[in-house]
Amino acid sequence: MNIDMIRAARSRLSGHARVTPLLSSPFLDELAGRRILVKPECLQHTGSFKYRGARNALAALEPETRARGAIAFSSGNHAQGVALAAREFGVPAVIVMPADAPVLKLANTRGFGAEVVTFDRATEDRDEIGERLSRERGLSLVKPFDEPEVIAGQGTVGLEIAEQAADLGVTRAQVVVPCGGGGLTSGIALALADTAPGMTVHPVEPEGFDDVSRSLASGRHEVNSRLSGNICDAIITPSPGKLTLPIMSAHCGPGITVTEDEALKAMAQAFLRLKIVLEPGGAVALAAALSGKCESETVIAVASGGNVDPTIFAQAMATL
Amino acid sequence: MNIDMIRAARSRLSGHARVTPLLSSPFLDELAGRRILVKPECLQHTGSFKYRGARNALAALEPETRARGAIAFSSGNHAQGVALAAREFGVPAVIVMPADAPVLKLANTRGFGAEVVTFDRATEDRDEIGERLSRERGLSLVKPFDEPEVIAGQGTVGLEIAEQAADLGVTRAQVVVPCGGGGLTSGIALALADTAPGMTVHPVEPEGFDDVSRSLASGRHEVNSRLSGNICDAIITPSPGKLTLPIMSAHCGPGITVTEDEALKAMAQAFLRLKIVLEPGGAVALAAALSGKCESETVIAVASGGNVDPTIFAQAMATL
Repeated sequence: MNIDMIRAARSRLSGHARVTPLLSSPFLDELAGRRILVKPECLQHTGSFKYRGARNALAALEPETRARGAIAFSSGNHAQGVALAAREFGVPAVIVMPADAPVLKLANTRGFGAEVVTFDRATEDRDEIGERLSRERGLSLVKPFDEPEVIAGQGTVGLEIAEQAADLGVTRAQVVVPCGGGGLTSGIALALADTAPGMTVHPVEPEGFDDVSRSLASGRHEVNSRLSGNICDAIITPSPGKLTLPIMSAHCGPGITVTEDEALKAMAQAFLRLKIVLEPGGAVALAAALSGKCESETVIAVASGGNVDPTIFAQAMATL
Repeated sequence: MNIDMIRAARSRLSGHARVTPLLSSPFLDELAGRRILVKPECLQHTGSFKYRGARNALAALEPETRARGAIAFSSGNHAQGVALAAREFGVPAVIVMPADAPVLKLANTRGFGAEVVTFDRATEDRDEIGERLSRERGLSLVKPFDEPEVIAGQGTVGLEIAEQAADLGVTRAQVVVPCGGGGLTSGIALALADTAPGMTVHPVEPEGFDDVSRSLASGRHEVNSRLSGNICDAIITPSPGKLTLPIMSAHCGPGITVTEDEALKAMAQAFLRLKIVLEPGGAVALAAALSGKCESETVIAVASGGNVDPTIFAQAMATL
């Protein structure tokens, strides 16, 4: 993995991924006691940054390989990214999801043109189903984060941050990033290490699901003791990736954790002051910035996704 | 008024106003049965397009005149635009508002640094107060729409639409614009007449408050019979402007009206599919596109503002 792969990803994504703006509000600056810039990847196609990595991974395949189609295991944002990217290339996408996934997520993934294959979590093995389908149909597996071209695609967020911040005269900042498996965080860290060396990237995780923060501290792959029971479900993964952890160890500062309440309050402020819709997992970095967990004069918070149910959004509104 | 004034406005706004992106979703295209592109001016500074016109009007003043400060009559988006623009220039802004304006609007306007002068609607005359303040303190009045430099500032939205649509291969489209006094609509129409002659601009108004639509049809300044009692309050004005109506008559197609329910449903779709927050008045153009009131293959809907109270937003969510 190196910066050239991220630059190549940018070329591939040009004219396809949206260049999201950097948003700000004097009210957020006042609340945080420092300057806050927000990179709203909720405005990306499919409502999250995941489209970047998925599109880049498909674009990097040999045309004959790509033509046979893609497969992904996901019930969330990655599934939608792969589905839309595959549709744009006119190739099939198969998304393997548990049969009890929320109806809305099944519908959205189908809405982006994917074939959804469901499995019974109790009696069937996801990986076995996926492997069989890949073999029979020649589908290429697009992993959600531990895959160089996916990391490179997410890293294009970092290139944009470096340039957009420089336009505002900002070269020194803490850059806080919602972190699950670490694809987005490691991609951004790699991009900024090269293009904005005055910036330090910090992964942000939900309290109690801080595998990456603990792994960065210990230097080993730490594991979450549980994988559910938090509103920030989109960024909860068992453990950092084999590829992403070394990159984060080399280029990131310490991890930061936030509570569910802090995430909900950040969603409410994003609604009120930036006019954007965030999901809880997508709001954790803004939450870190707004709840006194950053110290730099300028903080750049990546808002990674906005795929939230109205009922959860109403919980955030209730904090106002 | 001509295109050169809009180009000059763009130069003045460069590096200050945000270039908002063009958003889209395959789900909206399916719902509307045509391609929908959304220009989200809710993401503009202060949450609405009004910042553009206000900033341009102040930028166009002689420095000595500007230094004495600006005054505006508004309890809404225009007030916030003038307040922020004045603060950026380091000059005073006085906003004259009724004493019974919503607390949140008073607080937001003060939050952008303005001095708010309130008056009693029953016993005091707004214009008299404003005139006295202007005279005593040498403040420049920034009108909300019937002012060439304000129209020119709003017209920069049109220049961006022409370029961003061309990048997507779109040169023919209906462009639907939320319309109050007509500053935004006339500015966009003037810009597109020159830069994208294949596009036709249509003002969109709330049903029952369609002074502009009726004026375009009759060729005279028609007046609304009432000025309250509709959720789209931000775009309700008594009558089109003296400057804006001739421009709209020369360059716009027929007006379109939408119901309150259609506006609320458009807000909900903007939440669900674009991850943006719209106020009812800011959602009327998207509402026109989604409720079968446009016929072109591609419709470009301007989403003009996002300053909405959580309770109104909850009403929109309830339509899902």
